[in-house]
Amino acid sequence: MSLKGRDILSMRDLSRPEILEILKASRALIPVAEGRRPSRALEGRLLSLAFFEPSTRTRLSFETAAKRLGARTITIVDPAASSMAKGESLSDTVRMLSCYADLIVLRHPNEGASRLAAQLSDKPVINAGDGAGQHPTQTLLDLATMEERFQTLAGLRVVLMGDLRYGRTVHSLAHALGLFGSELTLSSPERLSLPEEVRRDLDQMGAKVTEQPDLEKALRGADVLYVTRIQKERFGDLAEYAKVSGSYRLDPALLRNMKEKFAVMHPLPRVAEIPPEVDRSPHAVYFRQAFLAVPVRMALLSLILTGRVPPGGGR
Amino acid sequence: MSLKGRDILSMRDLSRPEILEILKASRALIPVAEGRRPSRALEGRLLSLAFFEPSTRTRLSFETAAKRLGARTITIVDPAASSMAKGESLSDTVRMLSCYADLIVLRHPNEGASRLAAQLSDKPVINAGDGAGQHPTQTLLDLATMEERFQTLAGLRVVLMGDLRYGRTVHSLAHALGLFGSELTLSSPERLSLPEEVRRDLDQMGAKVTEQPDLEKALRGADVLYVTRIQKERFGDLAEYAKVSGSYRLDPALLRNMKEKFAVMHPLPRVAEIPPEVDRSPHAVYFRQAFLAVPVRMALLSLILTGRVPPGGGR
Amino acid sequence: MSLKGRDILSMRDLSRPEILEILKASRALIPVAEGRRPSRALEGRLLSLAFFEPSTRTRLSFETAAKRLGARTITIVDPAASSMAKGESLSDTVRMLSCYADLIVLRHPNEGASRLAAQLSDKPVINAGDGAGQHPTQTLLDLATMEERFQTLAGLRVVLMGDLRYGRTVHSLAHALGLFGSELTLSSPERLSLPEEVRRDLDQMGAKVTEQPDLEKALRGADVLYVTRIQKERFGDLAEYAKVSGSYRLDPALLRNMKEKFAVMHPLPRVAEIPPEVDRSPHAVYFRQAFLAVPVRMALLSLILTGRVPPGGGR
Repeated sequence: MSLKGRDILSMRDLSRPEILEILKASRALIPVAEGRRPSRALEGRLLSLAFFEPSTRTRLSFETAAKRLGARTITIVDPAASSMAKGESLSDTVRMLSCYADLIVLRHPNEGASRLAAQLSDKPVINAGDGAGQHPTQTLLDLATMEERFQTLAGLRVVLMGDLRYGRTVHSLAHALGLFGSELTLSSPERLSLPEEVRRDLDQMGAKVTEQPDLEKALRGADVLYVTRIQKERFGDLAEYAKVSGSYRLDPALLRNMKEKFAVMHPLPRVAEIPPEVDRSPHAVYFRQAFLAVPVRMALLSLILTGRVPPGGGR
Repeated sequence: MSLKGRDILSMRDLSRPEILEILKASRALIPVAEGRRPSRALEGRLLSLAFFEPSTRTRLSFETAAKRLGARTITIVDPAASSMAKGESLSDTVRMLSCYADLIVLRHPNEGASRLAAQLSDKPVINAGDGAGQHPTQTLLDLATMEERFQTLAGLRVVLMGDLRYGRTVHSLAHALGLFGSELTLSSPERLSLPEEVRRDLDQMGAKVTEQPDLEKALRGADVLYVTRIQKERFGDLAEYAKVSGSYRLDPALLRNMKEKFAVMHPLPRVAEIPPEVDRSPHAVYFRQAFLAVPVRMALLSLILTGRVPPGGGR
Repeated sequence: MSLKGRDILSMRDLSRPEILEILKASRALIPVAEGRRPSRALEGRLLSLAFFEPSTRTRLSFETAAKRLGARTITIVDPAASSMAKGESLSDTVRMLSCYADLIVLRHPNEGASRLAAQLSDKPVINAGDGAGQHPTQTLLDLATMEERFQTLAGLRVVLMGDLRYGRTVHSLAHALGLFGSELTLSSPERLSLPEEVRRDLDQMGAKVTEQPDLEKALRGADVLYVTRIQKERFGDLAEYAKVSGSYRLDPALLRNMKEKFAVMHPLPRVAEIPPEVDRSPHAVYFRQAFLAVPVRMALLSLILTGRVPPGGGR
């Protein structure tokens, strides 16, 4: 069950026990992520971060994870400035990176790019988002955030809100929550509802899933509201975009009667889905979620490169 | 009087003794800045450099300062490649960075951006230039350069030349020099003269200030000539720009009769204000000034993160 | 014969014994380059990488070399984002970098940029490619690849194919191979043949050089085929470009009857000169060549900064 040397391309590459191992390792690494406990656990390791589309948050949290553990990084951030501009293929770029570094973190606009990379690289590949495809480390940090808040993932009542059709992270999150026995409520405009195949997969797992486009009703009894961005480019008609995105904006008034531990989550960056006044609410955990990206990615890097997490997170 | 954990947003945040403490720490760190004495004083620390407008010199000198002291850095350099492109606010970007790093160095085109950042971040913020606002670390290195040359700041006769209206560094430099008892001579075209409120502030401090648009006359008896760039975009009429910038170009002949220690300074980058033949003059100290950016920023990082500077600069 | 503190601007700056010293040091550093043997040989050193045109491969291999040896780097990658955009000259940028770092690696579109930089910098400068000029570290890694494959450079029969006129690396490679007693066969379209002065230089060295535009004939008895990219922008007439580049594409069938150790090399990135099916051939060594960039650049950095290579490559 060791993760040593493994590729992480999709949540489906991880078993339940493996996910739990990552979450446990992540908890142990929180003091290192906070900068309170220095670590040289990955000293001498070199990671390659190849970002072929912008994702500052993902890139910086991977860099932070690597550097707080003593590893070094080499980074491609601007496709225009890279060899790709000379016509080089992704294949050759990946082969080059696997000549240099001990692990490749890849962000790419094309679905399947990470799987291709993993086939060509003799070093482990972590998918940091491939177009409409997968973004497994986002799902892991989402799970870590819920688990930290509720000490469990089983039986949580989670509302998924916004764009459930095109938001890739929400698909693998839904699958993972199903795997751990959460109850899902889907709250989205019809044209942005969860794709058929994702829904079918949840049904086959025996996950408890209901649909409730009315957010106020959806929130009754909920533990978690997971908000996603509604993207303008999904709508031909801007008037309809304005109407839909307006109605899927979180009204702070809705938070008044929620349970004490009720949590509002968002993968960030947000635009207008969550108004700034929610930030001060004790229910707002999206910045904690942003922080937990670091120990979760630390755990993955550590387990993949060394097969273990240093005792107590330090060394 | 400790700087530990403090934000550095403006020179006005620093008292006279604090400025002197920084300059003293900076002197001790020169061997580390030169690479002659290795240091791990900031090992395990992670700094975030967020540059939302280009400033290679400032960015690289902060990175050098951090890395020569053993710290690591994460960097945003291209606003277009960042989450800001997805519509994320500066507020959320700052909150993200304060989740990851131990300190934030911020360069931003908008005045007041650093103060906003400091309000949102629970980690210290250093203002590395915010539009027409402040750039306190530039002023500190300017002071360090004068103090190294003359062993004092008191009683220096400093000529400020060029664009005194829009050049932000010159405003906080003028204030700081007033604070330390320097005499100021302002030599600028009328439309680029020092703003009223800066002038009033100097008068209230009791600083000795005279105006002398004729550079040759201004230089009589001077210890320091501080040259600034005159920016084309300040002029509607290009012919007038050409005339004004031409007359505020340093004529090497003017340097012939100056005192032995007389120093020509410039925050760099320069365009044509100082012709290349001046570089060979013993009066040219602007490259020394560029170097001193490193120990001054080292001193700040060290004092903010640890409250002290390692004895002898090393460890 | 020490390389300590030396600039590396052109292969002509290196004597035969110095080249051999670098290749030997490179061999010793392979385990460090592979990440199998940690090293802190260059801990405390700071390198500046200034890339004023895109070259991801060269930049990342230098960064890898530096970081695997424990050095830190500061990097300029985007000329638009740099002070150059404010009108700063290359001279002032180089002077700034020599204030900060212990060594400058420079990539620049203009021929002679590195020599200018070396004159202005009091720190060593490595030319990482200057327009149509030199790219000596590419030639060193080409030699290292051949030497690893054949245990010698003497008497090798090397076919240089493609654009021999504008491909800068091929000029210094031809010179170096001549120096070591290799036999050269030039296989290029007439308009892309080796420039007269390079040819004359080879003749004066007494190098054995023949021309054979027909690749199949050129390959008879060859040890190495060195393929270069034919660039579209060299042709006014696109039809002629298509014809020429088509005939200088490596046909996998040609590899069938070659010697066992016969090696196909390419400086990468490639476009269509070598079809992907060649990658699986035991003759394809261009990815090994890409890897050897790291130990060769490690050797150079080590010899320039410390005058030696740590025993066994480690420390």
